[in-house]
Amino acid sequence: MRAAVCSRTHAQHLQSSLTLRPIGFISTHKQVKFQALHQPAEDEPERNVLELLPEPGYQQALKDLAGFSRVWLLWWFHRNASWRPLVLPPRGPAQRRGVFATRSPHRPNPLGLTPVQLLGIEGRRLLLGPCDLVDGTPVFDIKPYIPAFDAFPDAGGGWTEEVEAALAGPPQFAVKFAPLAQSQAEWLLATWEVDFRPRLIELLAIDPTPHRTRRIRRRGDVLFTIGCGAWKAVFSVAGKVVTVLALEPGYPLRFLNNPDYEELPDREAQLACWARWPEQFR
Amino acid sequence: MRAAVCSRTHAQHLQSSLTLRPIGFISTHKQVKFQALHQPAEDEPERNVLELLPEPGYQQALKDLAGFSRVWLLWWFHRNASWRPLVLPPRGPAQRRGVFATRSPHRPNPLGLTPVQLLGIEGRRLLLGPCDLVDGTPVFDIKPYIPAFDAFPDAGGGWTEEVEAALAGPPQFAVKFAPLAQSQAEWLLATWEVDFRPRLIELLAIDPTPHRTRRIRRRGDVLFTIGCGAWKAVFSVAGKVVTVLALEPGYPLRFLNNPDYEELPDREAQLACWARWPEQFR
Repeated sequence: MRAAVCSRTHAQHLQSSLTLRPIGFISTHKQVKFQALHQPAEDEPERNVLELLPEPGYQQALKDLAGFSRVWLLWWFHRNASWRPLVLPPRGPAQRRGVFATRSPHRPNPLGLTPVQLLGIEGRRLLLGPCDLVDGTPVFDIKPYIPAFDAFPDAGGGWTEEVEAALAGPPQFAVKFAPLAQSQAEWLLATWEVDFRPRLIELLAIDPTPHRTRRIRRRGDVLFTIGCGAWKAVFSVAGKVVTVLALEPGYPLRFLNNPDYEELPDREAQLACWARWPEQFR
Repeated sequence: MRAAVCSRTHAQHLQSSLTLRPIGFISTHKQVKFQALHQPAEDEPERNVLELLPEPGYQQALKDLAGFSRVWLLWWFHRNASWRPLVLPPRGPAQRRGVFATRSPHRPNPLGLTPVQLLGIEGRRLLLGPCDLVDGTPVFDIKPYIPAFDAFPDAGGGWTEEVEAALAGPPQFAVKFAPLAQSQAEWLLATWEVDFRPRLIELLAIDPTPHRTRRIRRRGDVLFTIGCGAWKAVFSVAGKVVTVLALEPGYPLRFLNNPDYEELPDREAQLACWARWPEQFR
């Protein structure tokens, strides 16, 4: 069968638009973006709630949905106001990809798509499993996940397959701790029960090159930093060896001393760290 | 972990809205809705084309997409202006379901979601496999189908599983042809090479009760009609036996004789049928 040809004019196309209003908002435990894993572990006991607005008919429209074990959420990347043709995915090498080849928020139409476990329905509230939406995300639609329509386990995953294969392979870099970093890590663990070494080593062993979403940045000519939750590490790279030189609080003193920021994670430990090793590398 | 609680007010929620503009339009061979099968057979040699608008960056945004064997299309149910809490699905028993438990167009936000085979990319044009979008449907977004994120073949399919199981089982009704219907079917096949008996028998054997999207309607006290493409059949039901009494052209004479409708399918055959069996049941 021959491919059909589109006969509309560009001007006609540009006239049409559709305005969406949220049907509800999701409540999650992820207040900030770095808490939202891109692939949340489904065996986590995480519970999220999608509460529909008290609009006429919304609760009735959930009839028959409880029989499905998963739903699709179509939602609003509401923190993104612009789009980019090429984006840097959070996983894999520091290589820009076409935005339509990614799930990035920086799309011409900022629509998100997520399949999530449906654990229960109570009135207008959907009890959901782990997902990567930040707290307060507006949701536009709920559709049943129908495996006969939606599940193609053998579909080719393009560049994501190469990235997953590389991540599953042996680490590319050896990670060593210089004496200062080693003593800081021991002090953090012994005094404050803070230990981000396993995650730090995992990230640096994959690829220590600068990467925005992996929070790896250059600092001066030979040093780099990487953010790990509320903490930072300073490191250098020689060949395939990464040397962690020092650990640092992730927040500056002016934030940590501000009473408005009392809820900052590990605030006390960060203040003590600043006091003990004042600004080693700045 | 305790479920989070939503603290925003209803008034705040209703203020927010998002306006979408199509990134492109799909060209398919389906000019009308009844040609768009709800589950297109993937071994069909059907080819569809999604052509992106010549906006700056759109072509570049397709970089790296060709490696994926499937894409998600997020699109506009542009022929639907209103929504309903309960809808009648095209398959299965005549039973209304909550719209969020279906893929029906009659949603608060008229967004469609379809996974489709990606066969090639030529500039701004995506060559796609079979899909259920009608010609000219506006598309809002393209996302890669990532099996590691999207494929859950063991997910529970709710009420759709019962419907599929019933459809896969033995037929519920026996379908017989009365002498007039039999001679009409033979004449249509011999003279015009028209034969919709297999599809007609299949549909009536499943369930001959009135159903909007299956185009089964009541005609008077004891008769029913069913639409099959450009044709109709008149039938009666007694217990578990359906008797097809007559076949009829699907279009009235005033349409068939109107030169504006020259492209109607089987127009000549329908005119001949009207001439030979003028309005038997009206």
